[in-house]
Amino acid sequence: MVASLRLPSLTSLLFPATTRYPAALRRTLCLRNRPASGFATAPSGTASPETKSEVGRLPRSDQAVTPRSQDFSAWYLDVIASAELADYGPVRGTMVIRPYGYAIWEAIQDYLNVKFKETGHSNMYFPQFIPYSFIEKEASHVEGFSPELALVTVGGGNELEEKLVVRPTSETIVNHMFTQWIHSYRDLPLMINQWANVTRWEMRTKPFIRTLEFLWQEGHTAHATPEEAEKEAKQMIEIYTRFAFEETAIPVIAGRKSKLETFAGADTTYTIEAMMGDRKALQAGTSHNLGQNFSRAFGTQFQDENGERQHVWQTSWAVSTRFVGGIIMTHGDDTGLMLPPKIAPIQVVIVPIWKKDSEKTEVLSAASSVKEVLQTAGVRVKLDETTERTAGWKFNFWEMKGVPIRIEIGPRDVSSNCVVVSRRDIPGKAGKVFGISMEPSTLVAYVKEKLDEIQSSLLEKAISFRDSNIVDVNSYEELKAAISSGKWARGPWSASDSDEQRVKEETGATIRCFPFEQTLGTKTCLMTGNPAEEVAIFAKSY
Amino acid sequence: MVASLRLPSLTSLLFPATTRYPAALRRTLCLRNRPASGFATAPSGTASPETKSEVGRLPRSDQAVTPRSQDFSAWYLDVIASAELADYGPVRGTMVIRPYGYAIWEAIQDYLNVKFKETGHSNMYFPQFIPYSFIEKEASHVEGFSPELALVTVGGGNELEEKLVVRPTSETIVNHMFTQWIHSYRDLPLMINQWANVTRWEMRTKPFIRTLEFLWQEGHTAHATPEEAEKEAKQMIEIYTRFAFEETAIPVIAGRKSKLETFAGADTTYTIEAMMGDRKALQAGTSHNLGQNFSRAFGTQFQDENGERQHVWQTSWAVSTRFVGGIIMTHGDDTGLMLPPKIAPIQVVIVPIWKKDSEKTEVLSAASSVKEVLQTAGVRVKLDETTERTAGWKFNFWEMKGVPIRIEIGPRDVSSNCVVVSRRDIPGKAGKVFGISMEPSTLVAYVKEKLDEIQSSLLEKAISFRDSNIVDVNSYEELKAAISSGKWARGPWSASDSDEQRVKEETGATIRCFPFEQTLGTKTCLMTGNPAEEVAIFAKSY
Repeated sequence: MVASLRLPSLTSLLFPATTRYPAALRRTLCLRNRPASGFATAPSGTASPETKSEVGRLPRSDQAVTPRSQDFSAWYLDVIASAELADYGPVRGTMVIRPYGYAIWEAIQDYLNVKFKETGHSNMYFPQFIPYSFIEKEASHVEGFSPELALVTVGGGNELEEKLVVRPTSETIVNHMFTQWIHSYRDLPLMINQWANVTRWEMRTKPFIRTLEFLWQEGHTAHATPEEAEKEAKQMIEIYTRFAFEETAIPVIAGRKSKLETFAGADTTYTIEAMMGDRKALQAGTSHNLGQNFSRAFGTQFQDENGERQHVWQTSWAVSTRFVGGIIMTHGDDTGLMLPPKIAPIQVVIVPIWKKDSEKTEVLSAASSVKEVLQTAGVRVKLDETTERTAGWKFNFWEMKGVPIRIEIGPRDVSSNCVVVSRRDIPGKAGKVFGISMEPSTLVAYVKEKLDEIQSSLLEKAISFRDSNIVDVNSYEELKAAISSGKWARGPWSASDSDEQRVKEETGATIRCFPFEQTLGTKTCLMTGNPAEEVAIFAKSY
Repeated sequence: MVASLRLPSLTSLLFPATTRYPAALRRTLCLRNRPASGFATAPSGTASPETKSEVGRLPRSDQAVTPRSQDFSAWYLDVIASAELADYGPVRGTMVIRPYGYAIWEAIQDYLNVKFKETGHSNMYFPQFIPYSFIEKEASHVEGFSPELALVTVGGGNELEEKLVVRPTSETIVNHMFTQWIHSYRDLPLMINQWANVTRWEMRTKPFIRTLEFLWQEGHTAHATPEEAEKEAKQMIEIYTRFAFEETAIPVIAGRKSKLETFAGADTTYTIEAMMGDRKALQAGTSHNLGQNFSRAFGTQFQDENGERQHVWQTSWAVSTRFVGGIIMTHGDDTGLMLPPKIAPIQVVIVPIWKKDSEKTEVLSAASSVKEVLQTAGVRVKLDETTERTAGWKFNFWEMKGVPIRIEIGPRDVSSNCVVVSRRDIPGKAGKVFGISMEPSTLVAYVKEKLDEIQSSLLEKAISFRDSNIVDVNSYEELKAAISSGKWARGPWSASDSDEQRVKEETGATIRCFPFEQTLGTKTCLMTGNPAEEVAIFAKSY
């Protein structure tokens, strides 16, 4: 790892730099000093920690972001580095979430946390160390998770009697505690959520998308009836769906997982599937109807109104920092990140422009009052008044960071009491409007309208991209053709698990879901020709 | 552990129950099914997980909370159980933070998070797995932390080449990353914070106060000059101090730690020390001036304005879920928890009272509109309209939960358009006021005024308790007398580390801090008779 740090990045070997950043921007690119594939393919075990002096001697990267169309994966890593979203941790497959990336996660938290509470859930916290024996109690759960476990075997200098699992998910410990809190039907429903870190020892990792440790929320509920549990599981996937569409402008497709793709320990898994810019699918959130699988394994029982003991019916549901990766890969372009206004940490950046010192004071003063006006109106605004960078450098920098709106103010704008407003989502002159009045009510109304327009426009663009890349198929041949052209295939499916497995082996695509929105009419399974009740969506995925 | 679960609790052996809870309240007391001392003294290693059937067979506890004056420690555990703040996790020394306890933590987070951002800090997230070699880099740091480490040695089924430390604190990994982000003076100051879980393999544990895993925030900053770092360290302890006084009504004493008590790796540690109800001290928050200790160990350097490379000057500072324990032990009484209004998850509980069914509708309707009125005014209010419990049961329950104000509404109140308001902090009739008008503006003003009064009154009470239990001492004899009477001793101190060590061994008390607020005049060291510059505060502590 130390040696590989000295190599030029894979990106730079494959794609010679076509444009160059101003030198001053280079320091933001430090993630790219590591091979683009290093995060994903480094061998198991931990990296030897580098010392500062070694890092200090590394050559600085001076290429621009790899064009998205050339190498989507390299582009993704470049954007994460250049927009300062995350960096590699010292242990293979771990990630440091930097302030700008974390602020996007905070926006996700702020929205969902309110929705969870509105729907009757309380936050709490379970310990992350789980006795190994717990994981073994639910048969399919242990099968699903045991290859990915990190184990604590030493504590306080002593070998532990029972090794501890660093939670990969909390169903087992939650059930252990639920047995102590649930006695009667009066204790139900029990509806909780926790914001926590989880650990899964993944072999192939990618920042935000799949890391050894990640942040998430996990909801866990217990109910008296299967109907209630089903309603809850559906309600939560509906909340995730609305969040994806309305806040992140990601037009996910919600549906049910196939049996093969269902969560280890669930009866049914609902999912939201998003189409990334490279047309691979990203599972962006899941909600599981756990039935009585865990309650039977752990003996989580309640006395019903007739005095009889019954096992509770449960759900669990989660969204993670992976969503940040989904936002990057849905909206970003060659210029960098593009953030939907509703979750952008900075919605508007103000760049003051002056040449002579005599102009500086009045320009900065006007810029400050514009900032004040927008801030008061509830807009998240940043005034970039540093004097060390040129305006051009700042334009590039904030475009890379995906800020939806840029306001430029120069001496002539000041004298005409106007500003220039540029949209991140419409490149060049077409997205630039001159002569917007600085008068507070006019400016605020204009900016808010534009933010709304950008939000809608990003969603529309993503919807049309999605829809133009889903092919309706009626035979396995058509499915194969669709997948090999990089698209998603949607077709009637009632074939067996082994047929599904065959599709995966032969095409690399899996059933992403049976979408809730189904087409009408009689259906014939694309594989077997038998009657089918539903269409399934097949795609390659992250 | 399984066997010990079947024993009656230590509390019940020592203190026969004097009062009995209504049976319906008993289910809230499940924490007490375990020996009160079990959490603190169970042997190292992990407990064998109990299965549900065993837990199900446990006798239910039916005693009231142990009186505080009889056994403070048993009282503390009883309150945590009965007020549903936390429960034991399956692994020795771990804790499940239940919704009501977690809501107090959320109130702490909400306040501090805003203050951190106002003072220029950004949130981010570092991985929790730290290569073992990192911990060894700073000499005193490894000495301080190595006995307490939890180690991951197996990942994905394979023995790891380098074992990983589950973070006990993040200075080492923070510095590893800072070396990659800090190049020039323009990158400074770098000021970040993370909300995270941390793990310390403690032998003697107590819920909230000292657990194997706990939640905290840890701030980390890097500066170009020692003066800036010092200013930052002081600023953060000042923010903690104000938080303690103004929000939690805990009159902490802020000051500097002695060399012996300084954080492993710091030049100077500032602390806030709180006096608990049993007069033991609780270190409730710390802020460290780390000097260049970590930056030298990790090579965290920057180029200054003259082009010379220098090591950065750093701070770190933290407050944890321990603060919740501090709130319980400062304000609670024999009736249970007593929460300062500003951090109470529920500030007002409304208990509707009726006898005949004919009264129910109008009482509930009045109670609902009172709730609506208070909620709209920004008061955190709960209407307890369950019909399964008596009003008396509800009074006890919400007093146990420490809700600052109770509003009672019965048929006669409805007809006179009035309510009864009871203060949690003034027991019995003295705290009960009849005939408060339901008229919205009158009621809201009254309730808000009372909440403010309760907040101030709790602080005043705590201040006078604190001040009446600090003895000014001028000799070692006086110090010993003060400590053995259970009080804190404050006296001039300029003696050696070994003298300090001797005081600890002979009295059980340590120097909690050299308080910022010093008395004027010449001072003579209580131990040596030499001139002293400062008074120190000695106390037994958690």
